[in-house]
Amino acid sequence: MSATERVSAAYRSIERVDRPEIWIHLRPEVDAMAEAARVDASTADLPLRGLVLAVKDNVDVAGLPTTAGCPEFAYTPAVDAAAVAALRAAGAVVLGKTNLDQFATGLVGTRSPHGAVRDSRRPEYISGGSSSGSAVAVALGLVDIAIGTDTAGSGRVPAGLQGIVGIKPTVGVVSTEGVVPACSSYDCVTIFAADLAGAESAMAVMASGAPGRQWPSDVRLAAPPRPRVAVPAVLPGLDEQWAAAFGAAVEQLRAAGAEVVEIDLTLFLDAARLLYDGALVAERYAAVGEFVDAHADAVDPTVRSIIAPAGVIPAHRLLADRELLAQLRNRAMKELDGLDALMVPTAPEHPTIAEVAADPIGVNSHMGTYTNFCNLFDLAAVAVPAGRAGNAQFGVTVLARAFEDGVAADIAAMVNGDQATGWTSGPADTVELAVFGAHLRGQPLEHQLTGLGARWCGPVATAPRYRLSALDTAPPKPGLIRVTEGGVSIVGERWQLTPAALGTFLAALPTPMMLGSVEFDDGSWGTGFGCDQEAASTGKDISEYGGWQAALSAGAVG
Amino acid sequence: MSATERVSAAYRSIERVDRPEIWIHLRPEVDAMAEAARVDASTADLPLRGLVLAVKDNVDVAGLPTTAGCPEFAYTPAVDAAAVAALRAAGAVVLGKTNLDQFATGLVGTRSPHGAVRDSRRPEYISGGSSSGSAVAVALGLVDIAIGTDTAGSGRVPAGLQGIVGIKPTVGVVSTEGVVPACSSYDCVTIFAADLAGAESAMAVMASGAPGRQWPSDVRLAAPPRPRVAVPAVLPGLDEQWAAAFGAAVEQLRAAGAEVVEIDLTLFLDAARLLYDGALVAERYAAVGEFVDAHADAVDPTVRSIIAPAGVIPAHRLLADRELLAQLRNRAMKELDGLDALMVPTAPEHPTIAEVAADPIGVNSHMGTYTNFCNLFDLAAVAVPAGRAGNAQFGVTVLARAFEDGVAADIAAMVNGDQATGWTSGPADTVELAVFGAHLRGQPLEHQLTGLGARWCGPVATAPRYRLSALDTAPPKPGLIRVTEGGVSIVGERWQLTPAALGTFLAALPTPMMLGSVEFDDGSWGTGFGCDQEAASTGKDISEYGGWQAALSAGAVG
Repeated sequence: MSATERVSAAYRSIERVDRPEIWIHLRPEVDAMAEAARVDASTADLPLRGLVLAVKDNVDVAGLPTTAGCPEFAYTPAVDAAAVAALRAAGAVVLGKTNLDQFATGLVGTRSPHGAVRDSRRPEYISGGSSSGSAVAVALGLVDIAIGTDTAGSGRVPAGLQGIVGIKPTVGVVSTEGVVPACSSYDCVTIFAADLAGAESAMAVMASGAPGRQWPSDVRLAAPPRPRVAVPAVLPGLDEQWAAAFGAAVEQLRAAGAEVVEIDLTLFLDAARLLYDGALVAERYAAVGEFVDAHADAVDPTVRSIIAPAGVIPAHRLLADRELLAQLRNRAMKELDGLDALMVPTAPEHPTIAEVAADPIGVNSHMGTYTNFCNLFDLAAVAVPAGRAGNAQFGVTVLARAFEDGVAADIAAMVNGDQATGWTSGPADTVELAVFGAHLRGQPLEHQLTGLGARWCGPVATAPRYRLSALDTAPPKPGLIRVTEGGVSIVGERWQLTPAALGTFLAALPTPMMLGSVEFDDGSWGTGFGCDQEAASTGKDISEYGGWQAALSAGAVG
Repeated sequence: MSATERVSAAYRSIERVDRPEIWIHLRPEVDAMAEAARVDASTADLPLRGLVLAVKDNVDVAGLPTTAGCPEFAYTPAVDAAAVAALRAAGAVVLGKTNLDQFATGLVGTRSPHGAVRDSRRPEYISGGSSSGSAVAVALGLVDIAIGTDTAGSGRVPAGLQGIVGIKPTVGVVSTEGVVPACSSYDCVTIFAADLAGAESAMAVMASGAPGRQWPSDVRLAAPPRPRVAVPAVLPGLDEQWAAAFGAAVEQLRAAGAEVVEIDLTLFLDAARLLYDGALVAERYAAVGEFVDAHADAVDPTVRSIIAPAGVIPAHRLLADRELLAQLRNRAMKELDGLDALMVPTAPEHPTIAEVAADPIGVNSHMGTYTNFCNLFDLAAVAVPAGRAGNAQFGVTVLARAFEDGVAADIAAMVNGDQATGWTSGPADTVELAVFGAHLRGQPLEHQLTGLGARWCGPVATAPRYRLSALDTAPPKPGLIRVTEGGVSIVGERWQLTPAALGTFLAALPTPMMLGSVEFDDGSWGTGFGCDQEAASTGKDISEYGGWQAALSAGAVG
């Protein structure tokens, strides 16, 4: 489908669903169609060609007002936020700006002068927030992808309640340039999509821009084949139906090959309380406090009651709370020693709009039980749907260490049954290694690659210029040798890894194996295995099998 | 000399120089001698065996009071600070705790109830501070090494004035556990020694402990052979003699092979003013403010006048100043684009004690002109002696980007004429690569290694199991091939580099070169160059020359 067809269809859907509260500013159709036509006319290789995009209204889109859910706060930016610019450059078309809990302060989606955003299926229920409009726009199929933000769960809670995917990357790897700050040390730009692959491809584009924080060069790109995943030993705040839904997700994770380990979540929950009950909320005052003080009547009373008092918090109290948080984090991270990730329910319940109105602070606080600690502890998070809890949609969030976004996505895919695609654009400079023997998937040394966080990329074949020899090693290994005459094509696998992982792998490589440049069947060259000629010459030639696995199957080795 | 001999000699020197103000707590000689005897009795490989160590009195030594220069603040820790523990475990013997500007707040060395620490050569002049006693103890030869701390220059200014070396590592790479905080986001533990090699070996030990901040895996370990070094285009605060001394240091740097580039230092100097004139000083209140408020009479009036008012600074002002600082830093770092380091005078003058007494805040502030910005901008610094400015000792400081401590040390060595030894224990997991041809020092591809931050480690020779072939490549390269019979020993070089650098190097390696495990003449194996057998077999055997350089000299290649 062309971009113009997709955009046109999106506007027809918007008319049909009649959910005006989703949008604070819907672009005139003619503008979006013109942008779509430019995408259709482009001959560039656009990874997100024609995807229809909604943007939370605390994120700048050039020429459209940014209100943060407060009309009096509005300004019209001249340039797109960095994340928006990246998605547009990749071929996405912006449809408009979506409703939110004002100043992104809330997890409910009701704190807006534009009205509460209603649940996509059961309109008397909340959407979840603060990225309420973006999540519901995706859930209703109005757009393909939507930008949210997340400080305490705003990019995850609405994903969970709306049965969609939400990715909250490691703090800083997606630039927050052009985003109205909420609590700037912890703010993230997030993405919503119907499925994990869609969210990942958009997040890869967003994360490939100039980050606020450098990717380390030794990050793990993928989860190991059998990850070890922590889950809470007890589940505060969940009723029986919700606890059962979480139990089913844990079983699914186990069935998909993960080892599940129960941990004590107390330290994580303690940190969550620091976000609003301590001095950290001073960051919200630093962001918009002067505006709130000067325009008290323009601000949602609940939002004002959170932000305004934070103006008098002394600096030394903020510093003390940050120190306390750092100590809590150190202790909490010890709970995850030896584990690849933590899986929690995304939200503990799905309240109605009336329930939130009756207790706006209490219900909101409860909604953040499993999300508030994440950004404070510098974790990456992927929220995915995981069945039902009674009539509600249920979701889980997989949390991994900073920069292990790819690990979180892989494990989320195991629960979700979706396919993780890998953050190929995460760390700026990954490299590839072609393997032909004991490091192939399922072979005895695969763990050396997965242990270094390498990601399997698929099969590969050499140019017909090589011979393969079964070496006299333990475990048995093949030696690939380039020859002038009589060469054949040998099949192998490509693995993606960081330069640091490749260097560590090489430094531990025993004789007679060597690494160098290998010619592939498409004429390209890449780094791959070879071996010492002396060793190859004493081995048994198995080139006729065309690859190590075929030779093993044929019983030609050992 | 044994540890007991060194310690005994140190006590005799201390008696002889009669500088009681250096020490807040000098250990009973019998205790230090007992510790020295244990070092002498140890058969372990102790890199700092028997070095005599003084510790600034804001850093814990088990069983000795920590006063931070304020007797009423004193507590007696049960365990050593992490940095002290590392030095002791490496064989250093603690002699005592040294005087300092109270709460490490000052750059003069006069703000102490234990009296002003006098300059090592001209007693009417200041020592510089706040690590005053530690610096003078080294300058007078009473101890081999001394621990200081540095937030705004306390580990550099006294090194400059006392004609010794001071290393202020990247913030966080030496743990500040067991250190009385001054302004904890920026506090560093530093080392003083008479020469660069001595300071580096001690710093390597301190940095090898559990850091507060992880070394990145792709850090540069060394400066390139011809570094590009920034110097200020104008030198505020220096009189003619001091400016001439700096000019001489610049000439020395140039003569040693550096390219010198003048930059505008304005943004750096602007940031310096934020440290005391803005809200960042709230960190000093967070550290010791409640004590200062409760014990006003116990605190130096100048120190109190800095810390006490910071208790009422609101948190949002601190956040705003940090944001301002981040912006300044981004802009200032652009001045260093393409440059390896910045060299500045360590101090702008050497005032008398009377001059400081007459204007305690003004002179102190002036002393920090070239040091205050460093920790705020997350730079590593190495202060080295650089001749005289009139009758004063003159020093320069080389500042490099975070984690490029080794780069700063290399460039400081060029000015100083001393030999940099390399921070071999900096990044936890460096690896080595043996090279045999175009990557040897002075050969055409050496720049590939130095460009990746690799450090030359010395010559190496293979086991007599190899043949060397001159390959038909451009530039000409040798191919090292392992053989069953007729092998000889081939000479090459060892280079130290990070795993990330090795992986990047491998990924760019063109055919027919390969990397794998090479056997050395001592029977050990390490990663090194080999090549494709097909290519080697078509080359010219040059094994008889025993190495590439000999073959080149003999005209045997090309």
